[in-house]
Amino acid sequence: MSGTAYTAAELAERFGLGLRGDGAARVRGVATLAQAGAEQLAFLANPKYRAQLADSRAGVVVLREDDAAAHAGTALVARDPYAAFARIAALFEPRPRRAPGIHPSADIDPSAQVDPGAHVGAFVSIGARSRIEAGAVVGPGCVIGEDCVVGAGCELVARVTLVTRVRLGRRVTIHPGAVLGAAGFGLAMEHGRWLNVPQLGGVVVGDDCEIGANTTIDRGALDDTVLEEDVRLDNQIQIGHNVRIGAHTAMAGCSAVAGSAKIGRYCLIGGAAGVLGHLEICDKVVVTAMSLVTHSIREPGEYSSGTPLMDNRSWRKSAARFKQLDAIARRLGARGAD
Amino acid sequence: MSGTAYTAAELAERFGLGLRGDGAARVRGVATLAQAGAEQLAFLANPKYRAQLADSRAGVVVLREDDAAAHAGTALVARDPYAAFARIAALFEPRPRRAPGIHPSADIDPSAQVDPGAHVGAFVSIGARSRIEAGAVVGPGCVIGEDCVVGAGCELVARVTLVTRVRLGRRVTIHPGAVLGAAGFGLAMEHGRWLNVPQLGGVVVGDDCEIGANTTIDRGALDDTVLEEDVRLDNQIQIGHNVRIGAHTAMAGCSAVAGSAKIGRYCLIGGAAGVLGHLEICDKVVVTAMSLVTHSIREPGEYSSGTPLMDNRSWRKSAARFKQLDAIARRLGARGAD
Amino acid sequence: MSGTAYTAAELAERFGLGLRGDGAARVRGVATLAQAGAEQLAFLANPKYRAQLADSRAGVVVLREDDAAAHAGTALVARDPYAAFARIAALFEPRPRRAPGIHPSADIDPSAQVDPGAHVGAFVSIGARSRIEAGAVVGPGCVIGEDCVVGAGCELVARVTLVTRVRLGRRVTIHPGAVLGAAGFGLAMEHGRWLNVPQLGGVVVGDDCEIGANTTIDRGALDDTVLEEDVRLDNQIQIGHNVRIGAHTAMAGCSAVAGSAKIGRYCLIGGAAGVLGHLEICDKVVVTAMSLVTHSIREPGEYSSGTPLMDNRSWRKSAARFKQLDAIARRLGARGAD
Repeated sequence: MSGTAYTAAELAERFGLGLRGDGAARVRGVATLAQAGAEQLAFLANPKYRAQLADSRAGVVVLREDDAAAHAGTALVARDPYAAFARIAALFEPRPRRAPGIHPSADIDPSAQVDPGAHVGAFVSIGARSRIEAGAVVGPGCVIGEDCVVGAGCELVARVTLVTRVRLGRRVTIHPGAVLGAAGFGLAMEHGRWLNVPQLGGVVVGDDCEIGANTTIDRGALDDTVLEEDVRLDNQIQIGHNVRIGAHTAMAGCSAVAGSAKIGRYCLIGGAAGVLGHLEICDKVVVTAMSLVTHSIREPGEYSSGTPLMDNRSWRKSAARFKQLDAIARRLGARGAD
Repeated sequence: MSGTAYTAAELAERFGLGLRGDGAARVRGVATLAQAGAEQLAFLANPKYRAQLADSRAGVVVLREDDAAAHAGTALVARDPYAAFARIAALFEPRPRRAPGIHPSADIDPSAQVDPGAHVGAFVSIGARSRIEAGAVVGPGCVIGEDCVVGAGCELVARVTLVTRVRLGRRVTIHPGAVLGAAGFGLAMEHGRWLNVPQLGGVVVGDDCEIGANTTIDRGALDDTVLEEDVRLDNQIQIGHNVRIGAHTAMAGCSAVAGSAKIGRYCLIGGAAGVLGHLEICDKVVVTAMSLVTHSIREPGEYSSGTPLMDNRSWRKSAARFKQLDAIARRLGARGAD
Repeated sequence: MSGTAYTAAELAERFGLGLRGDGAARVRGVATLAQAGAEQLAFLANPKYRAQLADSRAGVVVLREDDAAAHAGTALVARDPYAAFARIAALFEPRPRRAPGIHPSADIDPSAQVDPGAHVGAFVSIGARSRIEAGAVVGPGCVIGEDCVVGAGCELVARVTLVTRVRLGRRVTIHPGAVLGAAGFGLAMEHGRWLNVPQLGGVVVGDDCEIGANTTIDRGALDDTVLEEDVRLDNQIQIGHNVRIGAHTAMAGCSAVAGSAKIGRYCLIGGAAGVLGHLEICDKVVVTAMSLVTHSIREPGEYSSGTPLMDNRSWRKSAARFKQLDAIARRLGARGAD
């Protein structure tokens, strides 16, 4: 409730929003509809929460035109309330200062270059020939191996590892525990033992990408593993060697893409979904949670696999019948059916 | 076989167990039924291992009343042999000493508070305004960001990251590689590019929770992400922003909960199971391994999805028929069936 | 294109390969068929890429006898082109030098032993009674707890944690973020609260194993968790306490094995596949991606579960019918079918 305040009129002006009600209403922070108080701003985007609007004590609410009519209080009207809220909320986000400079404990190879405008935190290692550009933040405990680039304005929050040959564009954010550039899973069987196939490529990450906590992206075997610009990866994701992910694609937590698969632009990959190796998925494909992509997808649209959740007793019956499905269909004379 | 010894009678007395056989039998350690020797104690809880009892060379066995009759050797009789065994085994657990004090290499912000009775290990970073309470252990390589609290008696084993606004209750154990308080996956699409939604909340973890290796728990967008007391999370779990998990719920490895879902008390979530966002699961729900919860659950019980494991050739036939299921059912005139 | 060059004839001789075309052709590096230039060597193993052979500008191609006939350029003929390529590519792999010695920042318990021929990097912790053998590399940020052994020639790339009682054989490679030896998920419910079951065992990893980034392997409860020799684990894998994995088995990313399961030799476990606890899988079993093994497997072969990927609209129809399967089958009089 402390800090800078903005009036509703100022926010409307600044973000190009419609204003209903009291333009002098002051906003000192943001909160949910359920929790917001008199000097806080809330938003209504998901119709599921519409019922909360009437009871909300929020001083100002960001909402759509058609919800504004039903709202007696001060409102900011947006075509996309969630995006408008995101921009307003950023005004109130506490950002720890990361002053330029290198922490005295950092261990930096003499051949590495760190821009004077970059921040390098405690217990950071930077390997031979790597480069940290202006305004980049390399948080505590990060390990940057050989031949890496951390582009201008990147933020490696803490304990991020770039193993080798990882080139990040500008403004890439990487959350703790992520590992980029580890040797991909390349194995050949020879005389009954596994032989490692050298992983000579790197990882290229485009501008404005975000990579979640404990996500892993292997380096390519020969060519690079590539994320185009503005790709958003949640936590605990696994990206195999030589995968390519198109611009603006977002993947939810625990999803995984096997080696050499290509995913298009503006795709949405659900949580814990999987994509087999060497497949291609075109632009604007949605894969629902925990689905497994087993063949290439050439048409935009939504794709799924799996079965619905059931009580275990009923599920056991259906599951037992699943094993008999071919026999059942044959009995019906369905051989030729599609 | 070295170290402290206890007699069977001492153990019976100490843990309130029944005694059969030789109360003077000495116990110097614990082992499985198959491996235990004359001065070791074993247990029988899972009937699957009952056949091992006859051949066991264990000096003392903890078991249920109805198994005791069949056992000629010394036995401690418990209503819950596994719990009794757990308490006895703790007597023999080697616990590395973590002396109070701060390792000289640790990097601690001047505004942070570390209780003199806490242990802070090598290469630890502690950020502004964070507090480490009495008896807490912060193992090597941990990163504690801004505005965090590590409650009395907590143990962060090693390389744990608390990003920001993470408040741990008392006696919380966190295993290596876990990341709490990373920015949740909040995105709005605006003019064809992703816009980050500020993640202003924190993470609150109740007393006696345990969080597994490489598990991730994102901080809330506005309100906090919450684990109530005695929640047990295995390894590699992903908990999205604003999730709430009820007291005494246990989740097995690789499970995942998407943003804003609420899970009740005393639930058991199986390995690699998933829960979609914004759902509610009531108390005492069991979700079996690799099931996907796609709707709220309002009745206690066991729930499942998926299909049974089959040899691949048979599975291919059933899978092909799964695609024809609606046509098959229509042919049967099953339209109205439930 | 710099560095050492080899002639095709030299490579044929060195690796026992057949030679077609110009034995004097020089090779300075390796690349894909699509990318390789005149002084680079490519390979053709997967028939899917056969069409690229005609257009390839690669100076030398490693391929099978039956592909050699169709190729006008210089070729090295191998029974297994992928394995041959792996051996050749290793000649060109840049390997960062890790000189023997201990980084001055490392924090090593007085009772630990580090062989003078081992490399210990920056910000490494090594606990009481642990031993690092000759030629081993312990990269930056690793944490080695108490009573661990890192065998001769092992490489812990960076930020690897061995919690306690982890014994690695020789030439084990572990990628960043992996955690071995954390306490397994052993819980007993007592009076409505969880009680921890002490995890007194360790982890034993055989010679030549490889463990992927952010993979977790819990220590055993009483006996050890065991990987036999030459086991290959990809990234983000979870191995529960007391699991045993047979020699030469490979597991793809995000797969998981619950406690006390036993997996045989020469098995291939697909990505995101799961194995329930206490099961046994015999040798030479293939489990396809995202399948769940719910019973022991006693016959070699390929096993699967799940349903095929469908467009969401069609999938919803099949999924709804899955719930009716038992009723459908009963209507057909299929009660006795298998």
